[in-house]
Amino acid sequence: MDNLTISESSNLPNYDDVCSAAKRLENHSIVTPVLTSERINQRLGAEVYFKCENLQHIGAFKFRGAFNAISKLSDAQKKIGVLAFSSGNHAQAVARVCQIMDIKATIVMPNNAPLIKRKNTESYGATVIEYDPLSENREEIAKHVNANNDLALIPPFNHTDVISGQGTAALELMKEIKDLNLIIAPCGGGGLLSGTALVVNGFNEKEYGGHCKVMGVEPKKADDATRSFQQGKIITIDYPDTIADGTQTLSIGDITFELITKYVDEMITVSEDSIKQAVRMLFHDLKQVVEPSGALGLAALLSYKELNYKELKQALPKKIGVIISGGNIDSKVMRMILEQ
Amino acid sequence: MDNLTISESSNLPNYDDVCSAAKRLENHSIVTPVLTSERINQRLGAEVYFKCENLQHIGAFKFRGAFNAISKLSDAQKKIGVLAFSSGNHAQAVARVCQIMDIKATIVMPNNAPLIKRKNTESYGATVIEYDPLSENREEIAKHVNANNDLALIPPFNHTDVISGQGTAALELMKEIKDLNLIIAPCGGGGLLSGTALVVNGFNEKEYGGHCKVMGVEPKKADDATRSFQQGKIITIDYPDTIADGTQTLSIGDITFELITKYVDEMITVSEDSIKQAVRMLFHDLKQVVEPSGALGLAALLSYKELNYKELKQALPKKIGVIISGGNIDSKVMRMILEQ
Repeated sequence: MDNLTISESSNLPNYDDVCSAAKRLENHSIVTPVLTSERINQRLGAEVYFKCENLQHIGAFKFRGAFNAISKLSDAQKKIGVLAFSSGNHAQAVARVCQIMDIKATIVMPNNAPLIKRKNTESYGATVIEYDPLSENREEIAKHVNANNDLALIPPFNHTDVISGQGTAALELMKEIKDLNLIIAPCGGGGLLSGTALVVNGFNEKEYGGHCKVMGVEPKKADDATRSFQQGKIITIDYPDTIADGTQTLSIGDITFELITKYVDEMITVSEDSIKQAVRMLFHDLKQVVEPSGALGLAALLSYKELNYKELKQALPKKIGVIISGGNIDSKVMRMILEQ
Repeated sequence: MDNLTISESSNLPNYDDVCSAAKRLENHSIVTPVLTSERINQRLGAEVYFKCENLQHIGAFKFRGAFNAISKLSDAQKKIGVLAFSSGNHAQAVARVCQIMDIKATIVMPNNAPLIKRKNTESYGATVIEYDPLSENREEIAKHVNANNDLALIPPFNHTDVISGQGTAALELMKEIKDLNLIIAPCGGGGLLSGTALVVNGFNEKEYGGHCKVMGVEPKKADDATRSFQQGKIITIDYPDTIADGTQTLSIGDITFELITKYVDEMITVSEDSIKQAVRMLFHDLKQVVEPSGALGLAALLSYKELNYKELKQALPKKIGVIISGGNIDSKVMRMILEQ
């Protein structure tokens, strides 16, 4: 992957693709609420608008991308079925979308995936196939499961239709809250961040005169996208031990890399402590149940003063949109975070 | 209090008072989102619409009543100041409204009030006066604090303007979600429930042809309103040991009693276990942080099958509105609930 150059990737989605995705999602995805907290605003000295994708179907933005990609399959393909690899929210999203559209879904999950996520995926009627990530190769499992090569693979992020779907969250946010100066999105494989960046770029071109910036956030422990962004090539890291399990991808994809390089203004990284602090603050002040990956945007703002001088060299903007990516957190993890 | 008869109370608020309160609150209170959960609907076999007053200013519906009552004070009274007795959300509501309107607020709190609630009340600029509920008499403290008798007392529930303000939550809910068959509200002192009942009665008269019912819910351990409703007179109980701290009032007031008697169709009580189960379900399936009192409505629905045959003798309606009253829960309490 490290050898990929920008010119090799093709079929990049654009702003119009996100608008088409939004039409496809109409009456299917939830137009999630945008919430604010006086206490958080006071603390940060800014107006912060939280786009609550924890309140999306299946508790995460992943529903949007899965719905957009699957609804674009041919009728013949829909009759045969769909395949996805995921231990997390993407698995639930694909399973739920297939349930709605009456399509057979096969989800390959590592046997160390959280039990709750496996149960949820099965509850949506998907066939779950387990593999041992320590002894088995995912690609071999794929060959076995998809022997006839006829199931349509829905990738979790590096796919034009998936990225266009994820961008619809930022599209709703920018249509509802005018004149944002900055939008912050978490980055795992980069599907949400690159979709968001496409939308901000589209708004800047059409309406904003370039005044809205986009920032991506990762845990310090899972900084592959930040390093890729800084070094101009895709960097792969070892499996990162971060509480933000939605960002544990080892590298971004060639499509998400190209979009992030092109349209994202800044990538920053945050500590595990600031992620936990953000989850607590969203719990107490916004009354929202947010998973650690979903709290990365607020963690970035909490870290901003420190970052400001070292890395960003600019003051915190006044009107900020933050995408809360999801709310699927185990009781055990929340209890541990609330104890601190 | 037990000797009060209905004819003695006067100045009952009506549906139009709630509409006037709604105008006063416009652009001041939050039109809180109405959220649904496919998982909860599937489990209950009904459409349940949660009116999320945990997302109101100060994290509870109490902001509405306090704002309505305080904004109706004379300018002269506003210059002198306001007094409230409360250990809970009413204290925070009065303090916050006074902060917004630049009015001096004095709040008398028992010294065993949760530290977080005292700190929040002070953070809104109110003067907090502590007393020892075991050794000191609240009325004597009041005489002392309000020696000149010039501060305006804002009662937590038994007050026409407070009740009218609380009713605006149900008004928003019924305007947004059409054709509800049942609305459920928790009952502490009865301010929220009687305001809700006024609104449902108004809708039934004007538009619904009587097809929407109102149900009040209390913890089994704090069943004073249910007993009052059943016995036709105000019953006072001993300090109840329930996790739903918003319902620990010892009796409802004469105004709330009269409205509840007149307009509420059914009062039911729920176990402590079902309250905790409801908090967990709202956490996992609705992604909302809800305090135990705020989860009473869902607890009632979870208990409904059992109650159905014994007490209610009717099937669960299909389209149900549930008012989530607040989300101010201590980390410690949530951790304990999530552990079970």
